[in-house]
Amino acid sequence: MERTLTGDLRVRIGKRVRLAGWLHHQRRLARLTFVLLRDRAGLAQVVVEDPAVVEQVAAWLPETVIEVEATVAESEQAPAGVELRDPAFTVLAEPAEQPPIELRRPELKESLPTILDNAPVALRHPRRREAFRLAAASVRGFRAALDRLGFTEIQSPKIVVSATETGANLFTVDYFGRPAFLAQSPQFYKQTMVGVFERVYEVGPVFRAEPHDTSRHLAEYVSLDAEIGFVRDHFDVMRVLREAVAGMCEAARKAGFDAPEVPTEIPWIHFADTGVDDVDLSPADERRLCEERGAEFLFVTGYPMAKRPFYTHPEPGRPEYSNSFDLLFRGLEIVTGGQRLHRYEDYVAALDGNTAAFEGYLQAFKFGMPPHGGFALGLERWVARLTGAQNIRETTLFPRDLNRLTP
Amino acid sequence: MERTLTGDLRVRIGKRVRLAGWLHHQRRLARLTFVLLRDRAGLAQVVVEDPAVVEQVAAWLPETVIEVEATVAESEQAPAGVELRDPAFTVLAEPAEQPPIELRRPELKESLPTILDNAPVALRHPRRREAFRLAAASVRGFRAALDRLGFTEIQSPKIVVSATETGANLFTVDYFGRPAFLAQSPQFYKQTMVGVFERVYEVGPVFRAEPHDTSRHLAEYVSLDAEIGFVRDHFDVMRVLREAVAGMCEAARKAGFDAPEVPTEIPWIHFADTGVDDVDLSPADERRLCEERGAEFLFVTGYPMAKRPFYTHPEPGRPEYSNSFDLLFRGLEIVTGGQRLHRYEDYVAALDGNTAAFEGYLQAFKFGMPPHGGFALGLERWVARLTGAQNIRETTLFPRDLNRLTP
Repeated sequence: MERTLTGDLRVRIGKRVRLAGWLHHQRRLARLTFVLLRDRAGLAQVVVEDPAVVEQVAAWLPETVIEVEATVAESEQAPAGVELRDPAFTVLAEPAEQPPIELRRPELKESLPTILDNAPVALRHPRRREAFRLAAASVRGFRAALDRLGFTEIQSPKIVVSATETGANLFTVDYFGRPAFLAQSPQFYKQTMVGVFERVYEVGPVFRAEPHDTSRHLAEYVSLDAEIGFVRDHFDVMRVLREAVAGMCEAARKAGFDAPEVPTEIPWIHFADTGVDDVDLSPADERRLCEERGAEFLFVTGYPMAKRPFYTHPEPGRPEYSNSFDLLFRGLEIVTGGQRLHRYEDYVAALDGNTAAFEGYLQAFKFGMPPHGGFALGLERWVARLTGAQNIRETTLFPRDLNRLTP
Repeated sequence: MERTLTGDLRVRIGKRVRLAGWLHHQRRLARLTFVLLRDRAGLAQVVVEDPAVVEQVAAWLPETVIEVEATVAESEQAPAGVELRDPAFTVLAEPAEQPPIELRRPELKESLPTILDNAPVALRHPRRREAFRLAAASVRGFRAALDRLGFTEIQSPKIVVSATETGANLFTVDYFGRPAFLAQSPQFYKQTMVGVFERVYEVGPVFRAEPHDTSRHLAEYVSLDAEIGFVRDHFDVMRVLREAVAGMCEAARKAGFDAPEVPTEIPWIHFADTGVDDVDLSPADERRLCEERGAEFLFVTGYPMAKRPFYTHPEPGRPEYSNSFDLLFRGLEIVTGGQRLHRYEDYVAALDGNTAAFEGYLQAFKFGMPPHGGFALGLERWVARLTGAQNIRETTLFPRDLNRLTP
C-alpha cells in the first residue's frame, strides 16, 4: 500500500491507509489510547481501542518510528477533523532512550542552550521546524524574483586570501601548510562576476570570527547576495532589492506563513536627516526611525564613508557620505548594500596603494567594469524578524558562535 | 531611453535603441569599423562610418565599457541578422591596460594556467561563461525536481568537529583558539535533518584537502546533496536521483544547452557482476562498463563495504557488499549514494565504540530515525561531463587546489 501523508487524510475518509512517522505523543485514557503520529506534513491522531494494541503501544518511547495501517474517519475533536481507527502498527526503529526534549508540548519549555545542545531532536518540534520551512520558502522566493530579472546564480570560493570587510574577524585555515581565510562574504567574487554576467546572486555560507556573544551575531550564517551591473546609482540597487524582498514575502505567504506586503516604493531617509550625530546607527536608532515613520520597511541611505568598506562609492558632491544603504525591517537592519567603486584607479586610491593582497579582485576593474552595486541579506536574521524570534540562534539549524561548535 | 539587450534587437528593427556592454572586438576596414559589443545576452555588431567616430573608437582598448545609441537594421552577415547603424557612443569605464586574454577569439588560445590566473577576464569569454550558465540551470533543475517531490532545502554548518569520510583530507580551522575542520560533506547534517523534514537537499561548498593534483579533484567544490527518509532500500534513493538528474537535464535544455534524455529506468549492474576483482572500480573500469552497456547513464550498486564509509548500510544476506551505488555518466562517476544505517546500536558497532567525536550526529539515531538514504553529486564534474571539458578546473569559477588559492 502506498504511503499517505497526514496532510492528505481528509480526502480519504472511509479508506484504509498506510501512514509512517514518529510517535509524537500518546495519551492514555481508561479504555483507549490516543497516539499522535508526526510526519513531515503534520500530526494525525490514531485511536487505539484493542487492549493488546494498547499494551503494545504503551511500551514505546516518544520518537519511536512507526508505520500504521488504519481507517480514516471524521472526528470533530481530532486535528484537521479526522482520526485513524482500527490501527495495525509496525515499529521501524526504536529510540535508545527517552528524548531529552519534550516534543509533545505546543511550545518547548526547555532553555535555549538545552534546545541547541539537543538540536537533532529539538528541531523535530513542529514550531521549530516551521522556521526552517520559512527559510527555505524565503530563499526560493529570492531566487525566483532574481531569475525573473535576468540574474545568474553563482558559487564562489569560501577559502580565500584576503578580508572583504575588516581584517579583524577572519577565521584562519591551514591550506596545505599556508595560511588562508574563510570568506567573510562573496563580495569580491560577486563584483568580479558582474564583468561576466552583469547580474548575479549567490546563496551561501559566510564566516565571521565574531568575538562578541550577542543575540544577533553568529560565526557562520547564510548570506543572500546579489550584485548588479549598469546601475545609475544605489537607488537602482534598492529597486532590485525591493523585488527580491517582495519575492521572499510572496513565497512565504504561498507556503502558508504570515509575511508582509512590501510597498511598491519602500520609503527612504538619508543618514544626514536621521538626527544621529555619529557615523553609524545604533540598534535604538534603527527602532526609533522605523517607529517614527510607521514603516515596516525603511531604507536609510548615504551612511558616512567612515563606516563603510573601502569599495563603497562616495556620494557625488558630498564625499563624506556614501551611495550606500541599509534596509531596516521591523526596527532592525537586515540588508546592507550600495553602489561600489568601478574604476581601477579609484580602488588603488581607496586601498592607499596596498594592492598586493587584492590582485585577483583588482583584475576585474583593471579590465573594464561598469557602474554597479549590490546587497547582502542575512537569512537567519530575516527569519527571526518574520517569526519574532528574539535570538538568531532560534532560526539557525546548528549555530556556530564563540562557545558553540556542536552539534 | 531604456536599455535594450543584444538578444532583443530582432524585434526592434528600424528603431533607435540604447545598448550597454563591453567592447569585445573591433575590426577596422578601409572606410569603416565594425564594433562588437558584448552584454550578458550575447554580441551585437555596430557599424561605424563617421570618420570622427572611427577615430574615437580606434583609441579604445578591448573591454572598454561603453553605451551606444544606434538604429537597428537588418543585415545578413551580422550576428542574429541585425546590426546597429549611426551609433553615438559613451564610454562608461576605461580599462587600465590591454587585457591579458584575447577574448575576441572563438576559442581561447591561452594555456589553462594562464586562463585560471586571469579568471576575472577569461570568464568573460562567451564560451567560458556558458559553462557557468549551464551550472546555474542544472542547479535550478535539481531544486525544482526535488521541490516537486516534497523536499525541503537546508543549509548546514561548514565549520565542524569531525570527519564525515576519512580523516585524511581535512582542512583545519583556527576556531577561536580551538581546532575545528571544514566540512567534507553535509552528510551528518542531512541525515540528521531526515528526522525533521524526512526529505532534504542542500547545495553548497564542500572541502577536501586533496594532496593529489589531478584533473578531476579540487580542494573545494559544489555538492548537490539529498537525503530521503522512509525508503525500503537504495533503489528508492536511485529513483529519486533519476528524477533529480532528469530535472537537471530538462532545465539545461530549456536554457538552450544540449543535455541527454534520462531513461525512465537507468540500467544498473551489481558490483559483483562487473568482473572487477578489487574493492573499487578504476576510472578505466567505469569507462569500460558504460561502453559495454552502451549506456550514457549506468548505476553500479553493491560496492564492497570495505570501500564505503562507516554509515553505509550492508546488503542483507551478503554483508561484504553494501546497499550503495555510484551513478556513472558518460564513463565517469558523478554521483555517490546509498542506504545508510539507521539504528543507534548499528552506529555504535560501526564506530567500534569510538563515538565521542560523533556525539551530535548520533543523537539523531539515538532518538528514532527511519530507514533512509541519499546521494551527493559534484556540480563541476557534472558540467564537465556535459560540456566535454577535460579538466574540472574549466568548469569551476575560481578553482582551489594544492597549488592554487587565487584569484
